[in-house]
Amino acid sequence: MKEISSVKVADGTQLVIEHESACCNCTMTLGVFLPPQAKKGPVPVIYYLSGLTCTHENVVTKAGAQRYATEHGVALITPDTSPRGAGIEGEDDNWHLGTGAGFYVDATTDKWSSHYQMYTYITQELPDLINAFPIDPSRCSIMGHSMGGHGALVIGLRNPDQYRSISAFSPISSPIQCPWGQDALSEYLGPDQTSWPAYDATELLKITSNPQPILIDQGEADNFLEEQLKPQLIQDLAIPTLELNLRPDYDHSYYFISSFIGAHISFHAKHLA
Amino acid sequence: MKEISSVKVADGTQLVIEHESACCNCTMTLGVFLPPQAKKGPVPVIYYLSGLTCTHENVVTKAGAQRYATEHGVALITPDTSPRGAGIEGEDDNWHLGTGAGFYVDATTDKWSSHYQMYTYITQELPDLINAFPIDPSRCSIMGHSMGGHGALVIGLRNPDQYRSISAFSPISSPIQCPWGQDALSEYLGPDQTSWPAYDATELLKITSNPQPILIDQGEADNFLEEQLKPQLIQDLAIPTLELNLRPDYDHSYYFISSFIGAHISFHAKHLA
Repeated sequence: MKEISSVKVADGTQLVIEHESACCNCTMTLGVFLPPQAKKGPVPVIYYLSGLTCTHENVVTKAGAQRYATEHGVALITPDTSPRGAGIEGEDDNWHLGTGAGFYVDATTDKWSSHYQMYTYITQELPDLINAFPIDPSRCSIMGHSMGGHGALVIGLRNPDQYRSISAFSPISSPIQCPWGQDALSEYLGPDQTSWPAYDATELLKITSNPQPILIDQGEADNFLEEQLKPQLIQDLAIPTLELNLRPDYDHSYYFISSFIGAHISFHAKHLA
Repeated sequence: MKEISSVKVADGTQLVIEHESACCNCTMTLGVFLPPQAKKGPVPVIYYLSGLTCTHENVVTKAGAQRYATEHGVALITPDTSPRGAGIEGEDDNWHLGTGAGFYVDATTDKWSSHYQMYTYITQELPDLINAFPIDPSRCSIMGHSMGGHGALVIGLRNPDQYRSISAFSPISSPIQCPWGQDALSEYLGPDQTSWPAYDATELLKITSNPQPILIDQGEADNFLEEQLKPQLIQDLAIPTLELNLRPDYDHSYYFISSFIGAHISFHAKHLA
């Protein structure tokens, strides 16, 4: 594990870390924000999974999340969205597949499986890695944006003992039912759709009797709303532990995220207390 | 005046505007943030002047300022840092001179004077331009970062009837006494230093008997602190209306700005009320 940078922000420390990932078989980069409370002892942690084309950096520089993390005394772990430089043919040809678009799945196809193990990376390798920091592994929540909102929902729902609460901005609600998701799951899991529902929040919610508390915010002026995101698929399930807010006039960008990230961190902090 | 983009953030509207500048003799771009209160009537306004290499965009995406502007019901005007595409020889050769480095002066040398009229641009052309928005021209303050902190101090001090309060992050406290400033003033104003003190905050503060309220924040881990910024020059003047805070461990970046911009906007809002 190598420290790339360390900078003070919001009275805490924003680190960028590089490490050799065993499961992704390449060097991975992530952001780690430690609030000032971490100087006195282990703090709870929120994972933030980013969306298509993003790196670890977008949320670190654009969301204004650190001040809320300090307010609530939680650490933020902000991983990258895929392996990089894997050398897989075509990995850089398409902005919603391959580099920057790992979809938080464990790929099973010959083409991608050697590196694209983002599900295991997030759920197993990263928690082990961040044991090096003053973080309480028993108090952990997960959130994300767009593709990362899909990732947060899927990972959170499949690991209820590991993540106390889940939230998402503008998530891909059902990759099985949208073009981005269909392309990605076909490539990473293959055309046999038997394994696809395990990576589909809508399908998982149908079979989860009592999920953790879930908060979703979705902008109504989001260009991807109808074709790709489809929040009504989740809303229609009437999950008792779900709060889903449609926000008039907001789009898909970090302007939207920065407007509500305080509420999301506050939501998680309540469940991590 | 042409609207380049409009996006909802923090319950307000972040606009990017392009216009033909008469005094800079080129197309200029700026950000205009209107809080939701502007829908009901004119709101006070804070100008934010950016630093070397920045455009109008850095503060818009990285400072997290909009939520505080909404909290206090103030508009934010975030201009560019220089003319662009002026076609002046060497304008792009050096990151601290020419493009991205207008230093908020009215150039008088033959080489630069046809376009580099940033002092007039900020103090006269922009206020006229933004009359198109629901902004109260009688309630106006100014702030900035680094070169823009210099700009805010100089412009504010020279126009006390126009700007009620001044604040700066990591300002160039005396361009006459630092390499960046000496290079810039030599180029823009020429080697005769008679006109230089009018663009030097330290010199202006020496001859200003009762300046507006001034707030300065400076990170102590700022790489430019000793050679370029020199806040002690201002601190040594013991200005009664000045609050200057040295912040341990903070650097020169937007991480620093985002950590304290809430306090700066709150400071201005108090004086604009």
